Amino acid sequence: MAVKTIRVGMLGCGTVGAATIRLLDDHGADIERRVGCRLEVTRVAVRNAERPRDVPLAAAAFTDDPHAVIRDPDVDVIAELIGGIEPARSLILEAIGAGKHVVTANKELLSTLGRELFDAAESAGVDVGFEAAVGAGIPLILPLRESLAGERISRILGIVNGTTNYVLTRMTEDGLPFADALAQAERLGYAERDPSADIEGFDAAAKCAILASLAFNASVVAGDVYREGIAGLQAEDVEFATRLGYVVKLLAIAEMDQGEVAVRVHPAMIPKTHPLAAVRESFNAVFVEGAAAGELMFYGRGAGGRPTASAVLGDLIDAAHNLRAGGSGRTAPLAKARTRPIDEMSWQFYLDVAVADRPGVLAAVAAVFGEHQVSIRSMEQFGLGAEARLVFITHTARERDMQATISGLRHLDAVERIGSFLRVVGPE
Amino acid sequence: MAVKTIRVGMLGCGTVGAATIRLLDDHGADIERRVGCRLEVTRVAVRNAERPRDVPLAAAAFTDDPHAVIRDPDVDVIAELIGGIEPARSLILEAIGAGKHVVTANKELLSTLGRELFDAAESAGVDVGFEAAVGAGIPLILPLRESLAGERISRILGIVNGTTNYVLTRMTEDGLPFADALAQAERLGYAERDPSADIEGFDAAAKCAILASLAFNASVVAGDVYREGIAGLQAEDVEFATRLGYVVKLLAIAEMDQGEVAVRVHPAMIPKTHPLAAVRESFNAVFVEGAAAGELMFYGRGAGGRPTASAVLGDLIDAAHNLRAGGSGRTAPLAKARTRPIDEMSWQFYLDVAVADRPGVLAAVAAVFGEHQVSIRSMEQFGLGAEARLVFITHTARERDMQATISGLRHLDAVERIGSFLRVVGPE
Repeated sequence: MAVKTIRVGMLGCGTVGAATIRLLDDHGADIERRVGCRLEVTRVAVRNAERPRDVPLAAAAFTDDPHAVIRDPDVDVIAELIGGIEPARSLILEAIGAGKHVVTANKELLSTLGRELFDAAESAGVDVGFEAAVGAGIPLILPLRESLAGERISRILGIVNGTTNYVLTRMTEDGLPFADALAQAERLGYAERDPSADIEGFDAAAKCAILASLAFNASVVAGDVYREGIAGLQAEDVEFATRLGYVVKLLAIAEMDQGEVAVRVHPAMIPKTHPLAAVRESFNAVFVEGAAAGELMFYGRGAGGRPTASAVLGDLIDAAHNLRAGGSGRTAPLAKARTRPIDEMSWQFYLDVAVADRPGVLAAVAAVFGEHQVSIRSMEQFGLGAEARLVFITHTARERDMQATISGLRHLDAVERIGSFLRVVGPE
Repeated sequence: MAVKTIRVGMLGCGTVGAATIRLLDDHGADIERRVGCRLEVTRVAVRNAERPRDVPLAAAAFTDDPHAVIRDPDVDVIAELIGGIEPARSLILEAIGAGKHVVTANKELLSTLGRELFDAAESAGVDVGFEAAVGAGIPLILPLRESLAGERISRILGIVNGTTNYVLTRMTEDGLPFADALAQAERLGYAERDPSADIEGFDAAAKCAILASLAFNASVVAGDVYREGIAGLQAEDVEFATRLGYVVKLLAIAEMDQGEVAVRVHPAMIPKTHPLAAVRESFNAVFVEGAAAGELMFYGRGAGGRPTASAVLGDLIDAAHNLRAGGSGRTAPLAKARTRPIDEMSWQFYLDVAVADRPGVLAAVAAVFGEHQVSIRSMEQFGLGAEARLVFITHTARERDMQATISGLRHLDAVERIGSFLRVVGPE
């Protein structure tokens, strides 16, 4: 069998691009043996083509004209590794228009304008691979698109941001306050200089939208995702959670219920026996609940040049298969689903209330829960006297009812302060 | 676009076959929308075609002649769900010979004669899907074959048998002795009436061979796998492991080192912070160490009709894609690799030695370790007087040297009994 060479044109050559070129150089022979074709990066568009780069590629391969790379008839597949909305969007559409398969790691673009890209790819009969956009090196997109194509997925719970998971691990295991844990993440290079996209949950929300689109075959964008970050989390909340048998994680949650998609990112308490509770440090994991397959989890490194490059390479190999087999894309058109607002969602809740330590207080507090149809599952008092705190975990209740309960509690004389409020992942 | 129908011929209709038919019936419309083609089971070969069956399929679809199903020109894909070596082997070869894609859940066959099947499929240009053979509903085979096709995998650690993992969970969490934990597994239907294939590690060894073949693109059969079961495990070992910060799991381990494959199944201690330590009850998980992607884990239900049917369905959808695209199989030919004998493998070890509680004993014992180049990492004494036990964890040492150490210890006067011996998964 003659070995065909699949030629890759790359747009952008930062950490991920350079790692991809190095991986292909290192493992090229292995890949050729396993896959039956040679993969080669032949052209790379960068901002400054003159700058020397530490990659095993001739200087002549670099150009500052991305259009030249896309139009080059000797380029079979385009890898977009620029990031951001423009010019990435226009360049991907140009590549699709030229009938070329595209591989991208661009979660920002996919989570806002993914539908436009997938529709264009569907019309052109090409594929858009985006394994690298969520969970970096964790094979996640392919299993969801293909292995689970026949599965009815009811819920996805994901730890999809490594920075916040590292911070929460330090808060849980070392008892650090948020600011100290974040400072440690910054020192170790786990947090960006401006960590707000991570800490405030924007990064997780983009990934949540991509996962929801894929799992439910629905068009969900980042703006649909309800979002709360971890900056307000107190060391005490983490400590109380531990005492109650839970771990606090920043979760991206996507659910499908009666044709409505519910998507959100917020800190949540999960039982310490749940597999997600064991996801420590900067690791990521996505937990999938399917009707037939049951509970599944995919775990690994959610960031970094080499893990991300590994996913880009997997997609390039997939594109190479399609090119050899003459196969077309497998992108199914996305349906528009109603997004359920968070008010209508139901959960268990954790609430911590500072109260006057005197007889009758619990009865008054419990009455407010009852008024709003929120049923209390457990209550524990931490501290005494002026330090007295009541920590409640409720049965499943509606978000709207729980918010009304909190408002009601604020008006009680005996309540000195409403402390933290967290959502709790079951089972009850 | 006209919707094409892909017609499936099924061989065998036990738990998995019936669950597959029901799943297709339930989710058929979803699949058609997502995948763009209709999947239909049109013929089923069973031993007794007259027996009424609780599946949504006309009685006329059943036959007792498997050859008729294979030869039927209206059947596009064959799902072999009979199990065992023969007639499954001959029937699969017949289907491949007829140019049909095959989907099978048959780990026994794949782990002994897989090479023959893959070679035949390669020649005929068809695919053999076997996602269901390891880890049931966990997407594992597809990610290893495709997403990680460009990845250099160094090691796989798998909890691939649900029965033994359930037994070990009861021993760890409830302090039960082995026999009681097994009895409980039997009561709950997690163990077969004759549980020896599970308990003695034969089932895990078959899966280990399949995973090793896939990860290292090498021909590994079940007979190559070194195997020890969990029947000899004492409640005390599990308890000591817990005290030392470990959990005992039955692991299937496949490593590639300098062109040699090392494969084994035995109980092992893993640090309680390792993601595999959190795999409880009858769940399975496969932990993969890759050069670029880093550490990955795939977790889920490793047995059961519906999870297994979910994997069969995923493979059927994949075959349908290949049929529509006119694509050929992606099975790469397997190389013959040398299997490294367990004597030459290196590990950390746990050893528990009952000794006379008197001065100088530790020095004598430690000298024996030193003689055989086994370096001690930690020692702890549990119990006093006649109950005194020394529990050692070594640094990484060769199996052969550790065995020589044990022989040496047996000859020491001060050693009353060699207790348990377990291998320990690092990091040191």
